[in-house]
Amino acid sequence: MQKIEALSTWLKEQNIQGAFVTSTANVYYLTGFRCFPHERLLGVFVFPDKEPVLICPGMEVLQAKNAGWKHEILGFSDTDNPWEMISEAISGRGISSVESIAVEKEHLSYHRGMQLLNLFPNASLVSVEHELNAMRLVKSKDEISILREAARLADFGIETGIAAIGRGVTELELVATVEYALKKKGAAEMSFSTTILAGEKSAMPHGNPGLKEIQPGDFVLFDLGVVVDGYCSDITRTVAYQSASEKQKEIYEVVKKAQQASLDLSKPGTRVGDLDLAARRVIEEAGYGDYFPHRIGHGLGLDVHEHPSMNEKNNEKLVEGMVYTIEPGIYLPDVGGVRIEDDVYITESGHECLTQFTKELVIVN
Amino acid sequence: MQKIEALSTWLKEQNIQGAFVTSTANVYYLTGFRCFPHERLLGVFVFPDKEPVLICPGMEVLQAKNAGWKHEILGFSDTDNPWEMISEAISGRGISSVESIAVEKEHLSYHRGMQLLNLFPNASLVSVEHELNAMRLVKSKDEISILREAARLADFGIETGIAAIGRGVTELELVATVEYALKKKGAAEMSFSTTILAGEKSAMPHGNPGLKEIQPGDFVLFDLGVVVDGYCSDITRTVAYQSASEKQKEIYEVVKKAQQASLDLSKPGTRVGDLDLAARRVIEEAGYGDYFPHRIGHGLGLDVHEHPSMNEKNNEKLVEGMVYTIEPGIYLPDVGGVRIEDDVYITESGHECLTQFTKELVIVN
Repeated sequence: MQKIEALSTWLKEQNIQGAFVTSTANVYYLTGFRCFPHERLLGVFVFPDKEPVLICPGMEVLQAKNAGWKHEILGFSDTDNPWEMISEAISGRGISSVESIAVEKEHLSYHRGMQLLNLFPNASLVSVEHELNAMRLVKSKDEISILREAARLADFGIETGIAAIGRGVTELELVATVEYALKKKGAAEMSFSTTILAGEKSAMPHGNPGLKEIQPGDFVLFDLGVVVDGYCSDITRTVAYQSASEKQKEIYEVVKKAQQASLDLSKPGTRVGDLDLAARRVIEEAGYGDYFPHRIGHGLGLDVHEHPSMNEKNNEKLVEGMVYTIEPGIYLPDVGGVRIEDDVYITESGHECLTQFTKELVIVN
Repeated sequence: MQKIEALSTWLKEQNIQGAFVTSTANVYYLTGFRCFPHERLLGVFVFPDKEPVLICPGMEVLQAKNAGWKHEILGFSDTDNPWEMISEAISGRGISSVESIAVEKEHLSYHRGMQLLNLFPNASLVSVEHELNAMRLVKSKDEISILREAARLADFGIETGIAAIGRGVTELELVATVEYALKKKGAAEMSFSTTILAGEKSAMPHGNPGLKEIQPGDFVLFDLGVVVDGYCSDITRTVAYQSASEKQKEIYEVVKKAQQASLDLSKPGTRVGDLDLAARRVIEEAGYGDYFPHRIGHGLGLDVHEHPSMNEKNNEKLVEGMVYTIEPGIYLPDVGGVRIEDDVYITESGHECLTQFTKELVIVN
């Protein structure tokens, strides 16, 4: 409950009367209870000086207790009004004058924001995201151990997928094989929908795997991640099937060099945007600047995309304990796409790649 | 684009100057383009009399075109401000006086609601959800064909999972086997995280599959669904491994009878809440009312949980073309849980169960 206390302290300093935190990731971060409530309400109300209270669907109450939550739980049925229950819990704490409530403005729906303001007509909503992002930005040793395990499983996923490549095998069969092998190892949850794309489809950064059969000369791009205890990994590797043309080899090497340029800067003190610029410069100088249409990466942790957004305009500085992805790519419509992505952990003096699968161009026979 | 026209007509009737629709499901419903933008902005702006405009990450523009979107697309990079682009597109259409904008209040974040209001300081946000829910409530024959296929694949998933039960097999291995078989058939996406729970864990309505090995005498509860062309199925079946106690058989039969009571009322004109009450009465009369902690079901379509919420207080009436789940359950902490769930399609005079796997108690040897 140290995190709840840290948030309470911040609320007190800011003279904010309460924080209502509702995203699955942040509720888990604060309470240890990981819940996917679908359209139902989930949230934890944290106060400067009073006992916090968890609000969740009634059928989740037992699991919240099992997860270690020792404070009050408001479990509601499908016919209860959870906002009334919240209102009672707050007035029961002797809290009357509420001027501001901190919420995840980018997560809380407009409707729920209005419902909260109905309960506290004199309050204004302020953002708690900056504070929670700052808390989550620096990972503890325990969190790094979990992220390392998630990355290890991601490496295993890549290895399994490459081993399953063969003539006539479809993209979806590769997805099935990778996820089967991971689940057999106890990895219940992927970080996102596993993306395996072959041939020209590999040039679509967010294409969907289908029944396309792999052909000789195709690039096969694997983008996948595994969730361990709520923490996400995210790896991309691109291989060639049976042969690679000179053009394919060229763009592969450019992407690899671009990624290395960002990795070389990955140490405490570097401006985040410079990671993007370093890779982008390599790709632009090779003449492929128009074919790298996305940022260099993103923070990684309880969300597969979390703070910070690693784009060229970001002036934040890297600090020890940060974990993020470095994932340049070149996508040529008639040739295919290459992306190479690692999960990077900033150490005291440099960095460690949590994902470790080889980045030499693999040509699968 | 008939759906865009229908929404435009509604906006005109309501004297609303535009609708900004941002959920993946509703953007797909209106445009044919299905996109998961993560934290990036996705939306379609629809006006009473002007050309609509799609806003999406730049790297998705090609796929939006491939999906058949013929109107303007604003593709933004990670360093663009999409709200400025929206502002320009609107003023470029000669729209100046904006008094109200329809949004999905339950989906749009509070932050984005405020950004929209920054663009139009004199506007108020009204809800477009009621109208879109009403449009989506009644499925067309084409939509029913897709939902029937999704249900058929869900049946196949149950069949596959049951066939894989054996001594020492873990819950997660069953999940892996089911999803592998489905992906081999081309079913790329599950409606939600496949839930297979054995023994006492089957009594946790939203438990997570793990490395628990199945033991003789266990209930094994399967809850899964498949997405076909964006449409979801959702089935639950509960079987016993090697033997079932008298208590297990008793609660199984109560749940089956409760489900049948709801199915018997599934025809046009029935009050939605009566479906819940009919099943609840059967379970209460058998003495298990305290162990059925959730509503009878939910609407089904582009979202696995969509309008309407099938709870006892719902006074809406069933109409032809609706599709929803009927899923009573009894969860006894020391015995295990039983849930039986079908996807129900309301026809002109009655209903059709889209999911068709047997509901007799299967005892797997």
